[in-house]
Amino acid sequence: MSRSPGRKQENHKISRELFVLTYGALVAQLCKDYEKDEDVNACLDRMGYSIGIRLIDDFLARSAVKKCRSYSETADVIAQVAFKMYLGVTPSVSCSSATGNEFSLILDKNPLVEFVEELPAERASLCYCNLLCGVIRGALEMIHLAAEVSFLQDRLKGDAVTEIGITFLRKPEDRKHRR
Amino acid sequence: MSRSPGRKQENHKISRELFVLTYGALVAQLCKDYEKDEDVNACLDRMGYSIGIRLIDDFLARSAVKKCRSYSETADVIAQVAFKMYLGVTPSVSCSSATGNEFSLILDKNPLVEFVEELPAERASLCYCNLLCGVIRGALEMIHLAAEVSFLQDRLKGDAVTEIGITFLRKPEDRKHRR
Repeated sequence: MSRSPGRKQENHKISRELFVLTYGALVAQLCKDYEKDEDVNACLDRMGYSIGIRLIDDFLARSAVKKCRSYSETADVIAQVAFKMYLGVTPSVSCSSATGNEFSLILDKNPLVEFVEELPAERASLCYCNLLCGVIRGALEMIHLAAEVSFLQDRLKGDAVTEIGITFLRKPEDRKHRR
Repeated sequence: MSRSPGRKQENHKISRELFVLTYGALVAQLCKDYEKDEDVNACLDRMGYSIGIRLIDDFLARSAVKKCRSYSETADVIAQVAFKMYLGVTPSVSCSSATGNEFSLILDKNPLVEFVEELPAERASLCYCNLLCGVIRGALEMIHLAAEVSFLQDRLKGDAVTEIGITFLRKPEDRKHRR
């Protein structure tokens, strides 16, 4: 344990527990603010989106990831680099469509719910981690990839795993995205 | 970059930017919810307290810190171990009273405000990081140390540094705390 304070020691790595508990406080506050789960979910998604469009710069700077050449590569980077960097876990990735634009990130363990026992009965439709969907959607949009992102399974709701679905939206003229 | 997913790789270290932005979303939500800065500050402190009383277990388990023998040692541990662990920075510590129960944690740089330019004019009394005071207060209470914790200076408000004051409260019969 060094005794010298500050600057040079500073690094960006932290233990995630304070984050996880702070996230819990955020969700609890939104549950006070909004009666309907759908409104909480939408609010978390909106907040996440605002975060994602800012976080992408940090991610690109810190990860030094090169331009992805396919949706599949992009999904891998989200799982193996971004999740690792910001949540300390690495979901597995599966491609869930023949058209190659739908992917699932599968989390055996979701650190964001570490301190959550289960959802209260009156909050059965709450997508507790919906912020993450917004973050992914916002970050992708900033690199010119439109996507729909949502929870397909959630261990908090009794599913065997937690699964986030990402559907990359092709434009009418197929694959004319600028990335 | 490893391609194998999950479990064994899992660690508790994460980059703090997602946390910092999520914290910003929490404060912004509370500013929507409460008109008065004082109410936002009180709410952040309460939330922090609830977090602190849970986080202390994680801290003791992960840090392997031994029992502190003085207020001074406790303040050092908060700065050099806890802040390092959960925020990635190490404030300097100074004792600010002859009675030896008042300490200041001084942050040259506060990572929680990394994405905050300045407080809006109508939020001049907001203690943006007040959650931290609650966290410290809650965690200390769980190890039977009553304390008052508050921001004494804040760079967001134009001060040269950010300073968190911790006053350990002695009981009427001096030092008869159970620790």
